[in-house]
Amino acid sequence: MDKYEKVIGLARRRGFIWPAFELYGGATGFYDYGPLGAPLKKKIEDLWRDFFVIKEGFCEIECPTIGVEDIYKASGHLGGFSDPLTECKECGEIYRADHLIKHLVEVPDALSNEQIYHVIKNNDVFCPECGGELSHIYEFNLMFKTSIGPGSKIPGYLRPETAQGMFINFSRLLRYYRDRLPFGAVQIGKSYRNEISPRQGVIRLREFSQAEAEIFINPRDKSHPRFSEVKDLKLILYSEEEQEKENGTPQETTVGDAVDQGTIAHQTLAYYMARTHQFLIEAGLSHDSLRFRQHKKDEMAHYAVDCWDAEALLERFGWIEIVGVADRTDYDLKSHMAQSQANLKVFIPFEVPQKRDKLVVKPDMKKLGPLFRKKARDVADALKILPLEDLKKDPIVVELDGDTKEIDPQLVSFEMIEEEIRGEEIIPHVIEPSFGIDRIVYSVLEHSCYEELVDQESRMVLKLRPRVTPIQVAVLPLMDRNELMTPAEDIAKTLKARGVYVEYDSSGSIGRRYRRNDEVGTPYSITVDYDTLEENTVTIRDRDSMNQIRVKVEDIPDKIMALLKEEIEFEQAGTSLKG
Amino acid sequence: MDKYEKVIGLARRRGFIWPAFELYGGATGFYDYGPLGAPLKKKIEDLWRDFFVIKEGFCEIECPTIGVEDIYKASGHLGGFSDPLTECKECGEIYRADHLIKHLVEVPDALSNEQIYHVIKNNDVFCPECGGELSHIYEFNLMFKTSIGPGSKIPGYLRPETAQGMFINFSRLLRYYRDRLPFGAVQIGKSYRNEISPRQGVIRLREFSQAEAEIFINPRDKSHPRFSEVKDLKLILYSEEEQEKENGTPQETTVGDAVDQGTIAHQTLAYYMARTHQFLIEAGLSHDSLRFRQHKKDEMAHYAVDCWDAEALLERFGWIEIVGVADRTDYDLKSHMAQSQANLKVFIPFEVPQKRDKLVVKPDMKKLGPLFRKKARDVADALKILPLEDLKKDPIVVELDGDTKEIDPQLVSFEMIEEEIRGEEIIPHVIEPSFGIDRIVYSVLEHSCYEELVDQESRMVLKLRPRVTPIQVAVLPLMDRNELMTPAEDIAKTLKARGVYVEYDSSGSIGRRYRRNDEVGTPYSITVDYDTLEENTVTIRDRDSMNQIRVKVEDIPDKIMALLKEEIEFEQAGTSLKG
Repeated sequence: MDKYEKVIGLARRRGFIWPAFELYGGATGFYDYGPLGAPLKKKIEDLWRDFFVIKEGFCEIECPTIGVEDIYKASGHLGGFSDPLTECKECGEIYRADHLIKHLVEVPDALSNEQIYHVIKNNDVFCPECGGELSHIYEFNLMFKTSIGPGSKIPGYLRPETAQGMFINFSRLLRYYRDRLPFGAVQIGKSYRNEISPRQGVIRLREFSQAEAEIFINPRDKSHPRFSEVKDLKLILYSEEEQEKENGTPQETTVGDAVDQGTIAHQTLAYYMARTHQFLIEAGLSHDSLRFRQHKKDEMAHYAVDCWDAEALLERFGWIEIVGVADRTDYDLKSHMAQSQANLKVFIPFEVPQKRDKLVVKPDMKKLGPLFRKKARDVADALKILPLEDLKKDPIVVELDGDTKEIDPQLVSFEMIEEEIRGEEIIPHVIEPSFGIDRIVYSVLEHSCYEELVDQESRMVLKLRPRVTPIQVAVLPLMDRNELMTPAEDIAKTLKARGVYVEYDSSGSIGRRYRRNDEVGTPYSITVDYDTLEENTVTIRDRDSMNQIRVKVEDIPDKIMALLKEEIEFEQAGTSLKG
Repeated sequence: MDKYEKVIGLARRRGFIWPAFELYGGATGFYDYGPLGAPLKKKIEDLWRDFFVIKEGFCEIECPTIGVEDIYKASGHLGGFSDPLTECKECGEIYRADHLIKHLVEVPDALSNEQIYHVIKNNDVFCPECGGELSHIYEFNLMFKTSIGPGSKIPGYLRPETAQGMFINFSRLLRYYRDRLPFGAVQIGKSYRNEISPRQGVIRLREFSQAEAEIFINPRDKSHPRFSEVKDLKLILYSEEEQEKENGTPQETTVGDAVDQGTIAHQTLAYYMARTHQFLIEAGLSHDSLRFRQHKKDEMAHYAVDCWDAEALLERFGWIEIVGVADRTDYDLKSHMAQSQANLKVFIPFEVPQKRDKLVVKPDMKKLGPLFRKKARDVADALKILPLEDLKKDPIVVELDGDTKEIDPQLVSFEMIEEEIRGEEIIPHVIEPSFGIDRIVYSVLEHSCYEELVDQESRMVLKLRPRVTPIQVAVLPLMDRNELMTPAEDIAKTLKARGVYVEYDSSGSIGRRYRRNDEVGTPYSITVDYDTLEENTVTIRDRDSMNQIRVKVEDIPDKIMALLKEEIEFEQAGTSLKG
């Protein structure tokens, strides 16, 4: 049993994650979050909000998951978001064509469908199921398609990413921020990819949760005002350069050095990589199993300036992408401008208005008047908007109400004037940190999960951080008796009123209840015993060290709050019982 | 301009609610929640969690929004969740057929498709757009359909309700609750209905958010242990009986009386109606514009025992359903048992095991032995499991390895034994409070929104409760100057650290900033002026009364917290400035 199986086994048994629709045979790529998984996920999302909404001041919006076709024409998903398929002519089974030639070609992604088909034919590749002949290659779009309203008139797509919601609402967001850059908008919600045949459990889902921030910045200034807050943070960076070297390895570097040395393209990208790192560590990922890998030129989108994936090391799957942080330039807004014909530019005022010399035409009205009579004014206006190169022709040709008129260059003169320019219109660039919440939830579980032998018995522990763990405190009467249950219930009630997530549990031996709580990540267990009745104290047990302290009943709330905020050490919170 | 237009105008202008995909012409039935709408919605959802997850102790789960076909076969959505359509043979326009004969028939819902078609034909109903002939009636299923994976092999449906996630996970939930009833599970998330042509703005959405609780109870006991907590709460009930009366009206009744008088079917249903009422009032609905209307026999699902809709009064739409609270009996679990062949029964142990007399057969082995030799034991066993009526036949026929054997009744005798029965297997009944979050958000906005004349100018106010309002406190330096901005920023920072949602705003006249905050529902505005620098005090302004008090800077956090928790009156929080 590898670690994935162990973690998924625990997740399933204790109600963190369940394969969906099992009552009806299930469907790959779909999972449920159970009674412990849903709060764990929600707390990780709330921690993310704390970083990106509260601390960064980005606004959160919520857009529909169904979208209309034009959005995905503009984004490129309708044309390019697909996998090459081939079908067995005998049994009808469908395969990712590029996967069938992995052993024959180093980079199957780089081949055209024609080329893949040739490799299949020339190398006698047949259906892995029945040995039948394989069909020509066709593209399968990974968006789930549906139709809006009756009559299939309006195609609808389940969004493949939340990001487009921020792009198509750009004008409204800009107005909300009173026309000033930079600003950011985020969305946390479901996205969908109709994977061909997902085989990596919770790592490759057809329906998944994303948290994405789109940060719109002035392309002329990619510095970050709060860069100094993160510049000394150390990240493990696996740069493109190191990946290209024969013995290249990830390097631990400060964020500041990485920008100075040009490893990370600029401060703003580096700043959000640093915040990403801090968020992941607070969520509970293990420092040593977390790195940032730079996209290589051939894997990076053509429009992107720089892109780094935060990767978590998982025992079965190796390094997997859990976050992408990219400078997407003006690609997205430009595409939507082209598709919608709307103006998504932002006027950036100069700090000091600029003066500029400008050559303007000066029609000679005295000569134009007699020649064009009532139309002389219109001719003069038409001359004024003519580009300079057209004014240098002989004759000068202007259009007037569909007609063309020829004008002798003698009839115009030129003048140099000084023009004031107050600012310029730019298309903002987009910095996008994009988080795969489900992969982060699973990585947190795997990085938190360990087994050890205690008194010749295996103890399984989820070392979840108090901030994200679904149950923060277990309150356990030593025995199932009223005189112990009543004070225990009172303690549980008091803690709940302070906002603590409490589980009250009175069934089974105390040892079994401790193990049960270790397994779901409860950091502290409070036991009410007969000494409680006499001395008004309880035992608090620490999940990780299994050490116990004795604490006065009236001190419980303050001590527990301090422990949960990781403000004090466990041993400081009471009288140690370690003999 | 009616109130709907006013509220939607405000919602749009200030970033609460936006029609979706407007950049691409929009699509009816889809809306975005903007920078103020998303937090308002989230806070209403969190308030709901506080009621149903924390206080009721129900667990929250999160299931996929895409579901497989068997689920909706069992739930009845695949067969019955549809509207009758007719199409114009000339212009191709599609209509809800029953809507076209509303003026001709009192209850068009009650007609079959054949009957609707006859009404159309006999009354010369033609296409309202072009006058063309209308087609035969066909059913249009309101679920959005898609397909999972390539090749359209597996149909998938966007869920029409979140409830099915709880039903198909029933066994797992039961195990999580250690096989004991009652328990509840909830889900908050997106649901979808592919409406034909939604025309009621935010009231009829194709993609919407639900919060549903499924509470599984023992059908033998529909009392509620905490009923006494709510029995004196008064609700406005519009019972079926009153609806049937000629001059029937809604009646204000205590929850206790309504159960005693049989108006509400039982305590458990009444208990959740009471909690629903409390939640809606805390969210900000107006007491006078809220009632519970009982489903009439002909609108209630055939399996339901009793069902009440919480309805909000909206100016344009009248009384609209925002919550349904129903006793769905064992319908859902029974349907899934039939569809899946799984056992979804629960063993309920009796408090005292019951004893029961049972007649058992006693084969005479001495006589059977010689007759059946080696098979005598098998014959005896076969006799023991035979039903009583078969044992009374002559001869008695048993089956043995496919063979039948005839046995003389003389060879058996009967004996009465006492059997102990420890409990029974039951199918739980389901109580379901089902909340339409979007309609609640809109109702909160409409019930909170009012206009008044102040100094001959119109003042628009959103009287949102501090608990749900997106911005709780505005911090406003009187002028855009450093000496005022620095202390203002410090106050904002201190309040944020206490978890208060703060907006810092330094642009525009103070009067305009007050109005801006009135309009988005900010309950308190703190103004930093030159007296702040001298006396270390600030002005706090109350949105509703527009009264102002003076408070010491160091007292701000405690006073603001107390005001936001509605623990003190505004005038008590400082020195009044009213002349």
